[in-house]
Amino acid sequence: MKNMIPKGFIFSTVEAAVKKPGRQDIALIVSAVEADMAGTFTTNTVKAAPVKICMKKIASCTGQAIVVNSGNANACTGQQGMKDAREMIRIVSKETGLGQDLVYIASTGVIGTPLPMERIRQPLKTLAKEIGKATLDEVAKAIMTTDTFPKVVHRRLKIGNVSGTVSGICKGAGMIAPNMATMLCFILTDFAVGKKTLSAVLKSSVKRSFNRITIDGDMSTNDTVLMMANGLAGNDPVTAKSQDLVKFQKAVDEITYELAELVVKDGEGATKLVEVLVKGARTEKDAEKAAFSVANSCLVKTAVHGNDANWGRIICAVGYSGISFKEERADIYFNKVKVVKDGLANNKDKEATEELKAKKIRITVDLKSGKAGAKVLTCDLSEAYVRINAEYRT
Amino acid sequence: MKNMIPKGFIFSTVEAAVKKPGRQDIALIVSAVEADMAGTFTTNTVKAAPVKICMKKIASCTGQAIVVNSGNANACTGQQGMKDAREMIRIVSKETGLGQDLVYIASTGVIGTPLPMERIRQPLKTLAKEIGKATLDEVAKAIMTTDTFPKVVHRRLKIGNVSGTVSGICKGAGMIAPNMATMLCFILTDFAVGKKTLSAVLKSSVKRSFNRITIDGDMSTNDTVLMMANGLAGNDPVTAKSQDLVKFQKAVDEITYELAELVVKDGEGATKLVEVLVKGARTEKDAEKAAFSVANSCLVKTAVHGNDANWGRIICAVGYSGISFKEERADIYFNKVKVVKDGLANNKDKEATEELKAKKIRITVDLKSGKAGAKVLTCDLSEAYVRINAEYRT
Repeated sequence: MKNMIPKGFIFSTVEAAVKKPGRQDIALIVSAVEADMAGTFTTNTVKAAPVKICMKKIASCTGQAIVVNSGNANACTGQQGMKDAREMIRIVSKETGLGQDLVYIASTGVIGTPLPMERIRQPLKTLAKEIGKATLDEVAKAIMTTDTFPKVVHRRLKIGNVSGTVSGICKGAGMIAPNMATMLCFILTDFAVGKKTLSAVLKSSVKRSFNRITIDGDMSTNDTVLMMANGLAGNDPVTAKSQDLVKFQKAVDEITYELAELVVKDGEGATKLVEVLVKGARTEKDAEKAAFSVANSCLVKTAVHGNDANWGRIICAVGYSGISFKEERADIYFNKVKVVKDGLANNKDKEATEELKAKKIRITVDLKSGKAGAKVLTCDLSEAYVRINAEYRT
Repeated sequence: MKNMIPKGFIFSTVEAAVKKPGRQDIALIVSAVEADMAGTFTTNTVKAAPVKICMKKIASCTGQAIVVNSGNANACTGQQGMKDAREMIRIVSKETGLGQDLVYIASTGVIGTPLPMERIRQPLKTLAKEIGKATLDEVAKAIMTTDTFPKVVHRRLKIGNVSGTVSGICKGAGMIAPNMATMLCFILTDFAVGKKTLSAVLKSSVKRSFNRITIDGDMSTNDTVLMMANGLAGNDPVTAKSQDLVKFQKAVDEITYELAELVVKDGEGATKLVEVLVKGARTEKDAEKAAFSVANSCLVKTAVHGNDANWGRIICAVGYSGISFKEERADIYFNKVKVVKDGLANNKDKEATEELKAKKIRITVDLKSGKAGAKVLTCDLSEAYVRINAEYRT
């Protein structure tokens, strides 16, 4: 699908054996021209060196390249980590001829170990030289850690009469939790978009996609979403006043939501995708709180894993979410099967058990107390999650 | 250890096959005389019928019996659940001759299924008739659900010149989380204690024991701690002004802490007891928040399970706990091995891995920002936890 790539973006990937040899693990994204940029970052107090650097850079709303490594998060690495990240930028800048201020950086992987710079320097030079030799799909592969498949989503649309593309890639798998971007996500478009609009569009999309997924409730130190708009499609820039703003927002919304869904599907050890929809809440905030409480419950997640329609754990999780609601009004559904009616068992456990055998399940909690709702994506909790995470560094 | 039982308390247990046959699953505790009572209960909005009933009764600070069943939580059972719980009290009251207001009730087990009253009525009568035939240890066994061993702790002490006993039993295993009592705990003493003092002592003890443990972060609908003081030891009542108040408080503190530790040791699928101590925090609240964040992290708990000294996950969990702290000041220890010094790897991962092989591990996070601290108990997260909870109702 090379023709789906937004104009003017080129890529390269190289093996640097950051964690271990045998795969391309550093990647470079370059736009032919300076692009407008927007970003969202982890809200964890402990931030990786590349996150700290990008948070400063993004104030300029301008950039032209993103260099990424997997296998090492460059987090909790102190001054050395900052030095290493800056050196990576310097090498890319020197080899590509782009100003250092235009080069962004992201890392993902193990926390607390300094980057093996002695193994990275030479491959970084190669990476810059080979720009254009890799595809976006290969970049998506290079940024994987415990992911089992690369995550790439495209949308083609028209802004005015001009056709253009928005493409997004991301990596996820573990340490996925509320109030953050996802681990790493890069969204590229050849549409021209006003700087302020780009930032607003991205934030709005992230709020209802990456910020509404949870795998294990652990918020990462490295979560980064960067969006580049290089304008090479030739449209009139999308601004707050554009008729096409809604259309553009929708395309970005779809991309971030699909990527978020892919991240959860590929959750560590996940065998099922679970959509938790809380509706009939008094406020969206209440609905979100209740939905996250259900989605983060280990007891709910193991029950789903075992095809057990144990709705008591669901209403229990709503009960400790901190929102006020009337138990005797709540209805609960597994897909379309109503297992709880007005807070009581509806004797549909057998039918619900059948529904739970599917790979994608929707749990709906209708509080019947208002008109607000929120949807959170999660996955089941399996023995494989434990295995993967008990052995992650070995 | 029958001689360790506080004077005047007698017990019985009977098989009612509440969930399935094959074990004593209803129990009765009776004091020979009216006792002063105190209680703490779940803060979950969704409360089981027996919890709702006890919360009203406890206002009188008086009681003489506690009837308990395991196998069914009588939670999310609506009006029927309230009716059933009241009927249980009525039967016990009639058969024992004690006023209904003196009979307390507690249930633990599956949520959302009405009690099988047709199977319970007759055994309840037997239970009342056979009072005195069982030991406290047998009561501790009868209230177990997924617990693998009964939990009983005693303390003998003197108040003034009078010797007396405080005994505690409890059951735990799953749905153990902050801000609650534990699932069920009953503390009995033959000391005389003023009503207000009894309540204050219990609340203070629970705050730093049962409210500081977490197995899966799921807060139950049924958590109940009830304490009975019947005064048969013959001491002058312990009050806020008593010299021996500190001594009495200490005994109750020790009992609740030991029981809490036993609950965590017996956490579903647990192979290791983990003490998370956060010190050097600016406030106790901060320390508690950070400690719970670490103790609830699935990634930390799986790493401990796999003997992986992955301290990055610990500092990451402190980072998203919501407290403000300086990463570059934090030290982290596994037992006495300092794996992180001033926020950076201290290259002691090998030694730490050895420490992790023990059955009891202390993780210490020293924020070096103040003088406050808090300790939270938890366990590792194993594949067995997933198995137990995926198949709980089958």
